[in-house]
Amino acid sequence: MALLPGAARRLLCSLFLCLWLSTLARAATRRYEWEVSYQFKSPDCVRKLSATINGQTPGPTIRATQGDTVEVKVRNSLLTENLAIHWHGIRQIGTPWADGTEGVTQCPILPGDTLTYAFVVDRPGTYMYHAHYGMQRSAGLYGVVVVVVAAAPGAKADDAEPFAYDDEHHVLLNDWWHNSTYELAVGLASVPMVWVGEPHSLLINGRGRFNCSAAAVPGTCNATSPECDTPVFAVVPGQTYRFRIASVTSLSALNFEIEDGRRRSGGHTTTRRATSAGLLVFLPFPHVHLGCWTLPTQRKWLSRPKSSYFAGSFLKSMVVLLGHEMTVVEADGHYVKPFVVKNINIYSGETYSVLIKADQDPNRNYWLASNVVSRQPATPTGTAILSYSGDRAPPSTTPPTGPAWNDTMYRFQQSVATVAHPAYVEPPPPRADRTILLLNTQNKIDAHTKWALNGVSFTLPHTPYLVAMKRGLLDTFDQRPPPETYAYQGYDVYAPPQNPNATTSDGLYRLRFGSVVDVVLQNANMLAPNKSETHPWHLHGHDFWVLGYGIGRFDPAVHPASYNLKDPVLKNTVAVHPYGWTALRFKADNPGVWAFHCHIEAHFFMGMGIVFEEGIQRVASLPPEIMGCGETNGGHR
Amino acid sequence: MALLPGAARRLLCSLFLCLWLSTLARAATRRYEWEVSYQFKSPDCVRKLSATINGQTPGPTIRATQGDTVEVKVRNSLLTENLAIHWHGIRQIGTPWADGTEGVTQCPILPGDTLTYAFVVDRPGTYMYHAHYGMQRSAGLYGVVVVVVAAAPGAKADDAEPFAYDDEHHVLLNDWWHNSTYELAVGLASVPMVWVGEPHSLLINGRGRFNCSAAAVPGTCNATSPECDTPVFAVVPGQTYRFRIASVTSLSALNFEIEDGRRRSGGHTTTRRATSAGLLVFLPFPHVHLGCWTLPTQRKWLSRPKSSYFAGSFLKSMVVLLGHEMTVVEADGHYVKPFVVKNINIYSGETYSVLIKADQDPNRNYWLASNVVSRQPATPTGTAILSYSGDRAPPSTTPPTGPAWNDTMYRFQQSVATVAHPAYVEPPPPRADRTILLLNTQNKIDAHTKWALNGVSFTLPHTPYLVAMKRGLLDTFDQRPPPETYAYQGYDVYAPPQNPNATTSDGLYRLRFGSVVDVVLQNANMLAPNKSETHPWHLHGHDFWVLGYGIGRFDPAVHPASYNLKDPVLKNTVAVHPYGWTALRFKADNPGVWAFHCHIEAHFFMGMGIVFEEGIQRVASLPPEIMGCGETNGGHR
Repeated sequence: MALLPGAARRLLCSLFLCLWLSTLARAATRRYEWEVSYQFKSPDCVRKLSATINGQTPGPTIRATQGDTVEVKVRNSLLTENLAIHWHGIRQIGTPWADGTEGVTQCPILPGDTLTYAFVVDRPGTYMYHAHYGMQRSAGLYGVVVVVVAAAPGAKADDAEPFAYDDEHHVLLNDWWHNSTYELAVGLASVPMVWVGEPHSLLINGRGRFNCSAAAVPGTCNATSPECDTPVFAVVPGQTYRFRIASVTSLSALNFEIEDGRRRSGGHTTTRRATSAGLLVFLPFPHVHLGCWTLPTQRKWLSRPKSSYFAGSFLKSMVVLLGHEMTVVEADGHYVKPFVVKNINIYSGETYSVLIKADQDPNRNYWLASNVVSRQPATPTGTAILSYSGDRAPPSTTPPTGPAWNDTMYRFQQSVATVAHPAYVEPPPPRADRTILLLNTQNKIDAHTKWALNGVSFTLPHTPYLVAMKRGLLDTFDQRPPPETYAYQGYDVYAPPQNPNATTSDGLYRLRFGSVVDVVLQNANMLAPNKSETHPWHLHGHDFWVLGYGIGRFDPAVHPASYNLKDPVLKNTVAVHPYGWTALRFKADNPGVWAFHCHIEAHFFMGMGIVFEEGIQRVASLPPEIMGCGETNGGHR
Repeated sequence: MALLPGAARRLLCSLFLCLWLSTLARAATRRYEWEVSYQFKSPDCVRKLSATINGQTPGPTIRATQGDTVEVKVRNSLLTENLAIHWHGIRQIGTPWADGTEGVTQCPILPGDTLTYAFVVDRPGTYMYHAHYGMQRSAGLYGVVVVVVAAAPGAKADDAEPFAYDDEHHVLLNDWWHNSTYELAVGLASVPMVWVGEPHSLLINGRGRFNCSAAAVPGTCNATSPECDTPVFAVVPGQTYRFRIASVTSLSALNFEIEDGRRRSGGHTTTRRATSAGLLVFLPFPHVHLGCWTLPTQRKWLSRPKSSYFAGSFLKSMVVLLGHEMTVVEADGHYVKPFVVKNINIYSGETYSVLIKADQDPNRNYWLASNVVSRQPATPTGTAILSYSGDRAPPSTTPPTGPAWNDTMYRFQQSVATVAHPAYVEPPPPRADRTILLLNTQNKIDAHTKWALNGVSFTLPHTPYLVAMKRGLLDTFDQRPPPETYAYQGYDVYAPPQNPNATTSDGLYRLRFGSVVDVVLQNANMLAPNKSETHPWHLHGHDFWVLGYGIGRFDPAVHPASYNLKDPVLKNTVAVHPYGWTALRFKADNPGVWAFHCHIEAHFFMGMGIVFEEGIQRVASLPPEIMGCGETNGGHR
């Protein structure tokens, strides 16, 4: 290209653009027909009523090409229960009514009824779908959405990506209780709150293995059920694999690792650390703020030195991925500056693509392991098998146990390391028009345990906002916007809230269309002392730039100066670490009404969310199919 | 009265009528506000998620006076589940939309929504309410409706009734599983069908006592929970009590008995039989047809001789009710010719009033017992305590175990003995305009186990019939009426069906308004040989005359000649005994659309029902509140 004169280069570029556009013009419609019903399933060998799609949990994988229209005709064959399905990470540009968020963008689908979701998948990447009604996601209603790059005609799709791989695998992570979703939810709403306890199992692609001798109800656990066969990921020696990893957990922050082939049988991960000591480095990112918090474990983050970061073209020739290490290349549908990890932390609602080289001893199999982090684990490691031979034999080794669950800095640093791929940087607007500072607290309202933002615990209205606002039914929700900030000067994020009381509201934030909005999520101590949890916040309808993370109290006068405005990653879900803060920026340029909430099912249920409206007047006429509840019902009030 | 001349008598009668009407004119509106939610309850000491009304299961008792309007504002605070409540036995004259039958008379109430049911209770008697959506009734959503007589001013209410009593108790019988309603329903819909098994407990007024050492899940059973305290019915020695008994079981036919004080501690009911041998008599009712069936146990029915039947005025002076025997005085809101039983068989959907004299040794307590009949029981006796002293001490005796479960004739004969009170006979029309003969069979459809009538298994439409027919949405259900009869000449009711296949339909029977309709329900052998169950059929919107019962195959050319047209009882629920038939007649004079179905929750769920329409054009404008689903939804199809 460098040899061509400027005009010829421009011509050639235009030609490529035309070809690419013509590819888009040929965009297909991918049609799915789904029937959602309860079925008895044994995902972890314990028989339990599960919400299934066409009889399966997880549901079918949606695989489409960038620019395609996906049409999913969903029939609700639950018996007495309604339904809504959210397409997590799909921005729904022009189709805000298809976001699938009950109470926000649609009325639920009644039993016996059918709703067709239709939307364009405008960006390639790894996404997911799941129920977004009550706590229905926990019942098993979820799956993967893969959108592949629309390649130039004749070219291989992955030529358009800044990395190469021979084949791909999907790893869908979940946590699982034997209790019903209703039991979980009613317990949370009880006074005093009844917590169901930690998940019984961690599932990989909908499969786990509960220890049948510990099963609560005799006769419900069958260790030989094919439904709980350990998943096997077959690899061919020498090839490189893209693992598309998504976490749809209801609660758990997870760490995912593939067993290191150089570890001796029965050895511990410390062996691995010793052998790879030369790769250990602590990365002092400029936008890391540690505040006054004493880190529980100052363990170092395993990574290559910064100098080993490289752009995609270089990566393609790189084959020296040792010991099933993972090169992180995509997060939430965006290419990231590749970085290598021994294991990856993934929060509910996040997706990652990692590259793995099948370069270990092919005469044995290896464990894939999912471990709980951030909460003291009481759930066994979730496992799958990486098989060179194609057989299903479980390795004789112990599956990786992951990092220390309370090593917050280990996770914090991975968050910070996740920045945009140099060739794919979309620079954020240099400044925000509006900043919303949200203090995340656990509270009490009428003796109920709740979560609140700036002292306001969110409740969903019965007329979905999108319908209410398009139809002028403004008496259906609180017209007072929730608070933009909190008294941060005097707030001690390391102590339980001095005033544990909060109020409830279904008010929303109305954003000026096209404006740039900063949100800073400030974590804090919970009601009990010395406790702060990780909250993965998920924004509907947008990606946001992740401008910075810190530990301790965010200071609006200080910290914005150190925001990463150079190469921040775009994501739709981001972790707010214990006692920490996370700053993000987005453009309010997608007409609609959009939920923004903690992706922990129980936390959103208990009020940990807000809603944004932007450009409602630009939203086209709503399809009548999404109405029929609240003020748009026949008259049930 | 006999001493007055005719004119004066007529004048006095008119005066009484005016007084009575003025009482009606003073009819009150009884208002209730109910919030329906799931709560953890321990009705039988085992903690289980239960559907509650204002936090309670059973829900509050509705007590109103004849002529009152009952208004119940129901708010659905279930999480993701809809709701409908049926007022069982209330005919809903002029308010067919308030019948509470999802799919027939209304759309379900969505979570967060409120629906106000308003209807007149036009007849005194004992009724009930319960959920009528999916199998939600099984989750605990039920209660009692008592309508007392509108007495003449200054008179005691019970002066208007053909019997006297000092006080009353309510006995609400139920069966109970520890499994969720969803587990029950999904099992029934599975291929092959998964039967949850017999109920874990029998509840009396929502309480039972499961043996905690047999609890499936450790830690969920608490024998000291006040929620499973054995109910106590306090009595004052020498007084007479009206026990209003209602059965809302999902499955079980029950026998209810109060322990005989003359039985020795630890003795068996056979002792009782011996001491009361003089009262044993076999009643050869003219309308009993035994066909060719060999009765499993030709045990005799315990009753007073027919000569001891008497009208109410005589009963008032009768005090010789020995050993807690029961005098049956009301069935489904109608006074019956009193008859005395040692124990009473009651089928799901039935109500009875019985009088009991507290004339036993007041120095000890006595068991009230509920036992499964008609199916081989695997559920322990449900118990309560009759307490003369007011204390809660359980008697040291063994609770009555009831009659042999398979003594069909014992139950058959009680059915036959239930006829109208002589002073309250409402003669049936002498002949029917139309006869529908319904063969009840168990069938297979696409390998699913179903129940069918004349080979047609019922399915509910998604647009309620009442709404569809008033709005002319006739494409929402099958316009072909189901069959009126079956090939009875060649059908062997004692053998499994030769062709086990059936079809499904949501067609209904359109009745000429004001016409007289006979329905003969013909029971038969199930799919498995030598098995036939009792089916309690319940008609909405009407009472029907029970014209006759038989065992064996009904012959339309023979059996109608022996119908009881003299004093048939009016009921809304009637048993069809194993291998038997039951003939009933009603007048299609209540404009609306009305379900008629087996009251066993699982059987209706599996298709054992039909629907009648009559006088739809006379139904007033529907309240919009009942719409919003199916074709009246925003557009979910």
